[in-house]
Amino acid sequence: MTTTSSAPRRASAGPADLPLPLGFTCSGVAAGIKKSGAPDLGLIVCAKGAVAAAMFTRNLVAAAPIQVSRTNLARSRGHCTALLVNSGCANAATGPRGMAACHETIDAVARLLDCAPDAVLVNSTGVIGVLLPSERIVSALPELHAGLTADSCAPFATAIMTTDTRAKACTRTVGNVRVTGVAKGAGMIHPDMATMIVAITTDAAVDAPTLDRILRRSVDRSFHRISVDGDTSTNDSVFALASGQAGACDEALLQAAFDEVCTDLALKVVQDGEGFERGIKVTVNGAATPAAALQVARTVAMSLLVRTAVTGGDPNWGRILAAAGRAGVPFDVEDLRVGANGVPLFEHGAPADSTAADRRTAFTADVVHITIDLGQGACSDVFHSCGLTKRYVEINADYTT
Amino acid sequence: MTTTSSAPRRASAGPADLPLPLGFTCSGVAAGIKKSGAPDLGLIVCAKGAVAAAMFTRNLVAAAPIQVSRTNLARSRGHCTALLVNSGCANAATGPRGMAACHETIDAVARLLDCAPDAVLVNSTGVIGVLLPSERIVSALPELHAGLTADSCAPFATAIMTTDTRAKACTRTVGNVRVTGVAKGAGMIHPDMATMIVAITTDAAVDAPTLDRILRRSVDRSFHRISVDGDTSTNDSVFALASGQAGACDEALLQAAFDEVCTDLALKVVQDGEGFERGIKVTVNGAATPAAALQVARTVAMSLLVRTAVTGGDPNWGRILAAAGRAGVPFDVEDLRVGANGVPLFEHGAPADSTAADRRTAFTADVVHITIDLGQGACSDVFHSCGLTKRYVEINADYTT
Repeated sequence: MTTTSSAPRRASAGPADLPLPLGFTCSGVAAGIKKSGAPDLGLIVCAKGAVAAAMFTRNLVAAAPIQVSRTNLARSRGHCTALLVNSGCANAATGPRGMAACHETIDAVARLLDCAPDAVLVNSTGVIGVLLPSERIVSALPELHAGLTADSCAPFATAIMTTDTRAKACTRTVGNVRVTGVAKGAGMIHPDMATMIVAITTDAAVDAPTLDRILRRSVDRSFHRISVDGDTSTNDSVFALASGQAGACDEALLQAAFDEVCTDLALKVVQDGEGFERGIKVTVNGAATPAAALQVARTVAMSLLVRTAVTGGDPNWGRILAAAGRAGVPFDVEDLRVGANGVPLFEHGAPADSTAADRRTAFTADVVHITIDLGQGACSDVFHSCGLTKRYVEINADYTT
Repeated sequence: MTTTSSAPRRASAGPADLPLPLGFTCSGVAAGIKKSGAPDLGLIVCAKGAVAAAMFTRNLVAAAPIQVSRTNLARSRGHCTALLVNSGCANAATGPRGMAACHETIDAVARLLDCAPDAVLVNSTGVIGVLLPSERIVSALPELHAGLTADSCAPFATAIMTTDTRAKACTRTVGNVRVTGVAKGAGMIHPDMATMIVAITTDAAVDAPTLDRILRRSVDRSFHRISVDGDTSTNDSVFALASGQAGACDEALLQAAFDEVCTDLALKVVQDGEGFERGIKVTVNGAATPAAALQVARTVAMSLLVRTAVTGGDPNWGRILAAAGRAGVPFDVEDLRVGANGVPLFEHGAPADSTAADRRTAFTADVVHITIDLGQGACSDVFHSCGLTKRYVEINADYTT
């Protein structure tokens, strides 16, 4: 049998071939939403029902699936049977027709799995302002359902990719309990893409408020500490589903596993950012408050001039000072210490006594680790970003042309 | 006589050949601070003394000349005889030695003009973290002084250029009174450059508090409404000097002339931004408060994804919505109206009914004028930026390599 462009095709295993926690199955197919014919529809199912939590974009222009998932999660009081995600279309800024298309796909999943529509969560990622082709999704559901497997998260991780160059997944075990996460995208780095979607599954037995609490802490420590371009999207979301089938787990241990999975995925997202050439890690120590540490770290990590200097391997530390100085956090320049990969750059109010060769080496590392000590207190934070490259501009300027 | 690389050379007239107000002279020479041998030292003199006001960078890492000028302006209670500006070195993050170097140049100017050191204002623009070569400046002062002319602001405008491609000046008259402004740089767009310097001269008779008030209003309406990369510098400054020699002027009329000069210079700064290809103007109407209008306009104008879309001539209006939606200003998506150069893009919660050809035309104009109506109130604001280009990244990544 020959496949046509409209026929669904099975997603390949891809590099994210990691086990799912007990109670979960997943699948991915090409439903014909992407013109390329690549996999574009993914499903995670917990047939016996999972405890669920989620965090959604704070963007006021929230896509239809975000609005619907928010409502469903509230109505179900934190329970979920299935998570359906398509790539190739964001279904954002599409008005009442977009909302109706979203409900059509949810109703079809609910019929297929014999669950309440409220127990289905959804998201979409792709071009903003284009209506969801719900009929293609509904047509592909039987094959998607038939392909459900408990062996690997790869089919789902592959199906939700947009311009990602590789599927992203991570798994950790703590005692009997497993936590597996998959992710796509990097902020709104991807051209029209509306964008970061993360699904974390676990077989730990937790109630909805605990899962929500663990998720919020982990996301704050990971996905809220990365940036590629500062643009949050209309579709950003992180879902957590817990099947309970491996039994109870100490909250602190489960938190640690969630933290590890989320941090690993967050770094994978940055490292797969469009045009990625060199990473940036900014550690701020000696801040008076946690908020001050985060503010300085984020401002330096997101500065276009710091980011272009890193791309050029240029130890232009004056730009780090200038970015720190405009972060809105009071500090005394005399107490400020700045370094990169162990090489001192600025201290005691003047340029530090390092060699030009050492400074150059620090700025041509795979990851430029900028350290800033504000000399004010005991608070610290870390923020990750990457060099701004010509390739980034090229991809984002020339996307539809 | 042959000139050597260390001998000062006279700055050429350049394109900014506009008259100075009564009472002012200016000059520019090459003092050997720039390796290129281009003009790098400029002086404006008001021999009989001028009323002075200034606004300086809010960056905590303020350069030595900023700190000294702040002090001098306070000590003199808003009076000034000379403004000395060098390009090629920012004298920022240079510690006590940088401060001493700055004072050496001020003392030399004061001796030459027979005025108090407090009556000399200074600024420097160029690489951060490099000590000011004060001996070259002091050596060049006699020739700088000998070259003072009342004919044109061009010698000064040319001498303060760094990577600017053209000198920037503007003049307006209101009754008998003239206002002439010169500017260099664009935020911290210029690689290591620390950066925007503006000098506005007038022969109107005003007292120091009035001049300060007029300057702050004009700067807020012009230079605070542009951005090229969001990085404020360690050396940003706007100086205003009033000789009083043309007599009194109605404050509202003088304000209007200052507004026009500052707005013209601000647009010239954006249009000379590194890698400039296409301008962006964002007008926000229908905001509930002036702060809300500014916040949305600035967020959209500075969004990397909006800026790369404009570079690509790509009518990717979803990025405008996404940027507006994360600006931190509450609005109802149903009431939102977005357009570009008269072409409707989004209204009534859904994509507007315009043609792809019209949208493409709007985004390939010399200036893409984005209009956003929040449908909430009667407040408006305007913000200017430009497309983010590969050339910008190239220049800023490869500057010292």
